[in-house]
Amino acid sequence: MEGNRRLEVLERQLCGAQLAEAPELIDDAALSAICPKQLQALLVHDNPELRSAVFEFLKDDIFKPNHYLSLMEFRELTLQRLQRFVAADFGGRGFDVRDYMNDPRRFMAGLECLSFCDYSMAIKAGVHFTLCGGTICKLGTAKHHNALLPKLNTLELPGCFGMTELGHGSNVMGIETTAVYDAPRGEFVITTPSNEASKYWIGGSGQHGKICAVFAQLTVGGVWQGPHVFMVRIRDDSGRLMPGVRIKDHGPKMGLNGVDNGQIWFDSVRVPRDAMLDRYASVDAAGTYSSPIPTVSARFGTMVGGLTTGRILIGQGAVTACMIATTIALRYASQRPQFGDKLIGDYLTHQRRLLPGLATTYALQLGMKQLKVAAFDAAKPDAKLVHVLSSGLKAAATWNRVEVLQQCRECCGGMGFLAANKIGPMKTDMDVDVTFEGDNTVMMQQVARALLDDPATARLNAPGSWDRVALAGTPHVSAGQLHSLLQAHERSLLCQLRDAMASASSGKGGKGAAAAAAAFEENLDLVVQLGWAHVDARCMGYMLDEARAAPGGAAAGVSVLAQLYGATRIEARLARYLQVGLLNGADAAALRLAVNKACRQLGSGGPAAPALKLCDAFGIPEHLLAAPIAKNWREMGQTL
Amino acid sequence: MEGNRRLEVLERQLCGAQLAEAPELIDDAALSAICPKQLQALLVHDNPELRSAVFEFLKDDIFKPNHYLSLMEFRELTLQRLQRFVAADFGGRGFDVRDYMNDPRRFMAGLECLSFCDYSMAIKAGVHFTLCGGTICKLGTAKHHNALLPKLNTLELPGCFGMTELGHGSNVMGIETTAVYDAPRGEFVITTPSNEASKYWIGGSGQHGKICAVFAQLTVGGVWQGPHVFMVRIRDDSGRLMPGVRIKDHGPKMGLNGVDNGQIWFDSVRVPRDAMLDRYASVDAAGTYSSPIPTVSARFGTMVGGLTTGRILIGQGAVTACMIATTIALRYASQRPQFGDKLIGDYLTHQRRLLPGLATTYALQLGMKQLKVAAFDAAKPDAKLVHVLSSGLKAAATWNRVEVLQQCRECCGGMGFLAANKIGPMKTDMDVDVTFEGDNTVMMQQVARALLDDPATARLNAPGSWDRVALAGTPHVSAGQLHSLLQAHERSLLCQLRDAMASASSGKGGKGAAAAAAAFEENLDLVVQLGWAHVDARCMGYMLDEARAAPGGAAAGVSVLAQLYGATRIEARLARYLQVGLLNGADAAALRLAVNKACRQLGSGGPAAPALKLCDAFGIPEHLLAAPIAKNWREMGQTL
Repeated sequence: MEGNRRLEVLERQLCGAQLAEAPELIDDAALSAICPKQLQALLVHDNPELRSAVFEFLKDDIFKPNHYLSLMEFRELTLQRLQRFVAADFGGRGFDVRDYMNDPRRFMAGLECLSFCDYSMAIKAGVHFTLCGGTICKLGTAKHHNALLPKLNTLELPGCFGMTELGHGSNVMGIETTAVYDAPRGEFVITTPSNEASKYWIGGSGQHGKICAVFAQLTVGGVWQGPHVFMVRIRDDSGRLMPGVRIKDHGPKMGLNGVDNGQIWFDSVRVPRDAMLDRYASVDAAGTYSSPIPTVSARFGTMVGGLTTGRILIGQGAVTACMIATTIALRYASQRPQFGDKLIGDYLTHQRRLLPGLATTYALQLGMKQLKVAAFDAAKPDAKLVHVLSSGLKAAATWNRVEVLQQCRECCGGMGFLAANKIGPMKTDMDVDVTFEGDNTVMMQQVARALLDDPATARLNAPGSWDRVALAGTPHVSAGQLHSLLQAHERSLLCQLRDAMASASSGKGGKGAAAAAAAFEENLDLVVQLGWAHVDARCMGYMLDEARAAPGGAAAGVSVLAQLYGATRIEARLARYLQVGLLNGADAAALRLAVNKACRQLGSGGPAAPALKLCDAFGIPEHLLAAPIAKNWREMGQTL
Repeated sequence: MEGNRRLEVLERQLCGAQLAEAPELIDDAALSAICPKQLQALLVHDNPELRSAVFEFLKDDIFKPNHYLSLMEFRELTLQRLQRFVAADFGGRGFDVRDYMNDPRRFMAGLECLSFCDYSMAIKAGVHFTLCGGTICKLGTAKHHNALLPKLNTLELPGCFGMTELGHGSNVMGIETTAVYDAPRGEFVITTPSNEASKYWIGGSGQHGKICAVFAQLTVGGVWQGPHVFMVRIRDDSGRLMPGVRIKDHGPKMGLNGVDNGQIWFDSVRVPRDAMLDRYASVDAAGTYSSPIPTVSARFGTMVGGLTTGRILIGQGAVTACMIATTIALRYASQRPQFGDKLIGDYLTHQRRLLPGLATTYALQLGMKQLKVAAFDAAKPDAKLVHVLSSGLKAAATWNRVEVLQQCRECCGGMGFLAANKIGPMKTDMDVDVTFEGDNTVMMQQVARALLDDPATARLNAPGSWDRVALAGTPHVSAGQLHSLLQAHERSLLCQLRDAMASASSGKGGKGAAAAAAAFEENLDLVVQLGWAHVDARCMGYMLDEARAAPGGAAAGVSVLAQLYGATRIEARLARYLQVGLLNGADAAALRLAVNKACRQLGSGGPAAPALKLCDAFGIPEHLLAAPIAKNWREMGQTL
């Protein structure tokens, strides 16, 4: 035993000596080759004219932050801001909800720009245009498009999206609101059968909404047909509640108070037959139901498929927020000394807190880019890919946003808490993004399920120490090695889950699918980790693809951040890598030193730090950075 | 190679088979023995009458949450609430700032209770009573006490604490405001020499403050004597700014908007000689400076020593918030189904997110308890212990608060975002606690420095695989084993840092202390980890002590949570345990299963879940839980 111990001490010492030389993650030549302009073209890749026009438009005084307002005043301001938006010209075409179908890239780009300014405005616009308008576009037919979309475009008819109920958030299939067809009168009767069936969290319904896309369980001639969507007027043109509609304003929230959420009850509200969005299912005057989609569950999939665009917008909004917050925090860190002349940005702890977030922001931005390509550019989109990517990226981008904004807030000290410095209010307003438009835990489960359902899963081998990538003792770690590790980590989780489910379903009890489902539930912690692992590996792959294809000045930036991204994502799940033998203790020690060194390379140098060039590539207009500490903190309270 | 691989696969399978039996962390008998009443007596251990009286007092309508207000209205309400507080009777003695000296436990207890209701009120009270009043108590003499404390008690003289400057947050020694003694006139002249020297973040100064404890570099007869404190009137009795005092209101923050923070410049403001708090240093009329403390740095330590009470209050406030949020989230989880009848609290992911936070809340509450004993009950407090504990617990409690409130918010879905459900506003208001009253990163450095400076550090041996505690294959993991692991982890970080610093200072360059300091800076990531490790090990130790001494029904609760606390703190730093050999891969797998099982035991069972009994022990009055989802979510919008 004593001998063993001496041996181990010796090994440790040897290992310590090896580690004096940290493996290199980032090449200094790449750092100096970074070209922010080339990078910007890579990161923001569509509708540059529209984006510029919206950014210019947001210079108007009405868009200046005002945190002094009461709840009701802020809502009013948010409405006025949107009214400006719909009245704007933007190079001739304005903003048109029909672009949801005709030019989804332009539609997205316009809405994306709003979140640079104020999240309440972005979300109020998102509910109106994407959730309500997009649903009409997607599930409605010409009569709905013609009657409603022009009035959505002018905000004459502020729209709501009535899916969630008090008792049913993630479980849309379980909603209880009913729509019964009354054939003699040619009307649907919409009813809220219980308080739990009240529509809940309905954005825009608290004060301003006049029409709502209501999800309800349809019954025609006594036969249940599953959830369908009905366009229901909730207020008349002058803003009075419609008969049978009761609404309770949700009142204050922890943030996002420019949006008037509310709770809606329908007391046998009658709507005409045309109110049903009938692209995928219709009821004729006589009360005959027909649909080209044969089953309730398949129809349900079609009805809720429209959520994807909203999810992409939420994910993109989260990435945008990380860009803004990281830029503000890094600029401040590059100017602000503490304890003598040492800049706060020169402390390792500071670099360790801010720079991994910068890398992740790039990775997720490039992930969002590929998601948009998959969703909008393909002649026939790969539905499964879009589902996995939109679910996984929505969850990863918003959870990452929680982490990045928190670190940025803390790294700016009290300055990060001051509303004028923008990070705090973004944090507060956006906190809901991790649970709305699909709760993140549920989203990650969707990713895992899709991976487990893929037949290729059956053929995977679990990785182990034979797949180890030796980081210790190597002078340089390549992106390919990091990518391999991320993929092996994903495979390790996938195989463990696959085996757990297989062994449960083939157990002596022979319980089959139910046992497999139970095993899935018993391993939900790993399920969520698998969702993360998939997003990590995929984004790393996208970064490597971009680095290969991009011009030099952009490739340099993406490569550098891919190195840091890969290394810090591995570090974040390091225990698992050690547990399954993908790395050993010496590798872990080497990885730490390598990340420390990379952080120093990126973050040191004050205003000349390479990290600031990487922030410049986000192309955030100065008037939307709008934080005094991003300019000159020394003048706070004096001229700023 | 192929043979090796087969061997490893075989080992993995064997290991998998062993793991089917997760080690037991929590004994079912202990679960049923838990007595909330006994536990409550253990957790909340002083001034029960005062606490009850304050809680009762907070039933008044004026303390009902109101999130509709504008910034200025909310500040006014906060002031009015404090005016009620100072006018209250509380069983005859009221609340008296002199208890800062005479009965610090009572002083703390009174202020602690306010944070159950509203953090703005608690912080405005904390600035006034603890920072301003406490400074007068501690650094002033009878003339200050007699002249000022009665007026602080009635809020006739709302007080501020002018330490932080725009350019100097953590580095108080570096403040630039000057106080020059003008002997002929017997006055000090207080001056703000630059914008960076303006007093910044001064709570209460924006609107209401009338007197401020100003930290300034004192010069007497041309000799600099270091920072001293001067009581400076900033507004007259009617609220007009005093001559030479300029104040800029900070305006809106991301939360805590009931507190009017501001920025203060002094343009040669003259104050009488008596304005200097002169317990530890004085200037006589002729301009002779004298102090029983010989050096500037020792005097400085005395001047800022008063921050400890504030830090304890901030840490305690964070623990209180975790109690409230965890109780709300667990109650909601115990009632709210999703996807059929399954309660959200029955999902493993939910249990994994909420229950470690419950255990940590207990651990930190018991840590705060010992800190108060050390700070207030000892005849001669152990200054080093109080420093380490107050720094470490402040940082750990507030960072834990960030994590716990975030998880609670997310676990309640949108309901957690609704202001009425309390978690969101607590999150927003309290976000500043991680950076004020000592930035957490700096606090953890203080802990690490103290540990490294302890001579006993030199004799420590680094742990390694010979200290492994085998979790795999064992039927039961004891708290002692978990404690040993936590201690070994701390020792491992401490030894690594010690060795890095020793090897740097004894290097060929022979650079000594400067090289050691540089090595400390190069390892700041480990430094912060060491701070955490110390707090974890210490709190685990306190839990074990309590469990040994407490009556059965309390001991059962503490034991159960000590098991979960120890296990999840190890899990949170698992990579390090694997890296240094304290655990191996099989242990890691066993630990995961053990924690999953413990979470199930605590969290399952809906309203009968043991976790709810453990929340009951917090003794939070129902009117201060004040969240509809903690009552009956089904009635939201209807009767709630």
